[in-house]
Amino acid sequence: MVCLALAGGVGGARMAHGLSMVLHPEDLIIAVNVGDDFTHLGLRICPDLDTVMYTLAGLANPETGWGIEDETWNVMNSIKKLGGPDWFALGDRDLATHLERTRQLAAGTKHSDVTKSLCHRLDIAHKIVPISEQAIPTIVETAEGDLSFQEYFVKQKCKPQVTGVRFAGATEAGLSHPLRHAIDAGEIDCVICCPSNPFLSIDPILALPEMRELLTTALPVVAISPIVGGRAIKGPAAKLMREFGLPPSTLGIAAHYSGIINGIVIDTADEADVLALRESGLKVLLTDTVMTTDEVRETLARQVLTFVRSLHG
Amino acid sequence: MVCLALAGGVGGARMAHGLSMVLHPEDLIIAVNVGDDFTHLGLRICPDLDTVMYTLAGLANPETGWGIEDETWNVMNSIKKLGGPDWFALGDRDLATHLERTRQLAAGTKHSDVTKSLCHRLDIAHKIVPISEQAIPTIVETAEGDLSFQEYFVKQKCKPQVTGVRFAGATEAGLSHPLRHAIDAGEIDCVICCPSNPFLSIDPILALPEMRELLTTALPVVAISPIVGGRAIKGPAAKLMREFGLPPSTLGIAAHYSGIINGIVIDTADEADVLALRESGLKVLLTDTVMTTDEVRETLARQVLTFVRSLHG
Repeated sequence: MVCLALAGGVGGARMAHGLSMVLHPEDLIIAVNVGDDFTHLGLRICPDLDTVMYTLAGLANPETGWGIEDETWNVMNSIKKLGGPDWFALGDRDLATHLERTRQLAAGTKHSDVTKSLCHRLDIAHKIVPISEQAIPTIVETAEGDLSFQEYFVKQKCKPQVTGVRFAGATEAGLSHPLRHAIDAGEIDCVICCPSNPFLSIDPILALPEMRELLTTALPVVAISPIVGGRAIKGPAAKLMREFGLPPSTLGIAAHYSGIINGIVIDTADEADVLALRESGLKVLLTDTVMTTDEVRETLARQVLTFVRSLHG
Repeated sequence: MVCLALAGGVGGARMAHGLSMVLHPEDLIIAVNVGDDFTHLGLRICPDLDTVMYTLAGLANPETGWGIEDETWNVMNSIKKLGGPDWFALGDRDLATHLERTRQLAAGTKHSDVTKSLCHRLDIAHKIVPISEQAIPTIVETAEGDLSFQEYFVKQKCKPQVTGVRFAGATEAGLSHPLRHAIDAGEIDCVICCPSNPFLSIDPILALPEMRELLTTALPVVAISPIVGGRAIKGPAAKLMREFGLPPSTLGIAAHYSGIINGIVIDTADEADVLALRESGLKVLLTDTVMTTDEVRETLARQVLTFVRSLHG
């Protein structure tokens, strides 16, 4: 049976990495958000896919979570000198990924096949798949008007107040081929919503009608809370929860995923929330969720897998 | 009055560099071949323009003549690891030029304006202009069929026997705006065909009807022979001359440019050709043409300018 992990950026990548340490390659599919994919300098850039790939390949920069460790910036520095745009950081080795992906996509190769080929070259045995073959650009609705995801996230550093988020074309987009295939073959027996940003990383995945449909079957679905002790480990999740009128807590996460998840995994720092979460009808796993080391990732993955497989959807 | 230099790759770049050491920026236009421009990894690459730019900016690799000195290859090495194409060498700093050019062209900026902006950022005071705003891809006709220029030049290392060369769209292509402007204003008083490959670098320039028209006016036009002592300083010029049934000598060069040039500049190594060249009706300047050092470039440029301005078209 196959565990389906839904992942976005850094938090998702680390959970996926943990799961890859515990599960055989044929027992795990890591489905990655494509809502933050964008075209920059003529290149198709897929930050979430790249973060997951680099993390599983052991190449990720441990400081930032994104990008490549010991990266060089020769191209970027020259682009700056030429007066080109420098708001989106492009390391030399990272750039090779974007160039090769863009080349393969331009040659007509499917997004999932390009990802498969890149993973193969990076010696990643586990399946990393884009959630869809199509682009589903995330549009962040703010008090200052609509912003593209990278404009909001990188250029404006998540500062604008968000009033809503939409995913252009999501309702018409199909799941990517490997994902569709696994679902049709009835292989998936549980779903894990990794501790990625619920609004910006997981929601664009849930926005696909075929994914919603899967999650309303009898499959057990758990989410690992990206909020620990009232704060997001990384990124604007807590800020967005406040902007959306949700408490920035595991309770807010549970409310957001209501109707989708059967269980929630929360950090020991949030022990006080357990009762309320159980009262809302959820099963709760209380453990260490801050994945600072490979050991924590692996232990958490084992616990989460035991937990999700103990549930009934 | 403005001197118009027609240039291709390395030899053209070195002559243009010499001219830039002697002439004020407003007295020189370096018009560069675009026949070898191509799109690779989604990037618009203009090898001849780049070679001229890098040479005038003092960045050129003195060993190869093309590319940037002390270049790094981090992106290229990663592309290789990802299984991407590695037949066309792309240095990190060079890549920045292609990325920024591609970005500006995609934004609708004219080729000549993009070149102007890149030159400005590289602190080049002299005017380097693409011969046309349009693409005029050189097609090399060989015994094995038609090849794109880079396929012939880089991928197949000039090995296939060439039966002809054509320039797609040349008869419909106009001169680039700065060039058109200078001609319309009657500013150009002489033309120098730099010692670039006559078939692959200068012919694609001469293939433009507006350029042909300019060269059949009363302007003095000289060519510096890229053949010295029966050999090309660089590249396949001598091989092509043999394939086209021309002697690989200054006489062959003179025959090729017949009807276009009034004078020819040849190396002292070819002194034996002077009489025959004069008998063919050409004025001849015999001097050192092998531009190994900046001093030779500058001296040659002074001599060529005195020579061309002594002629009547």
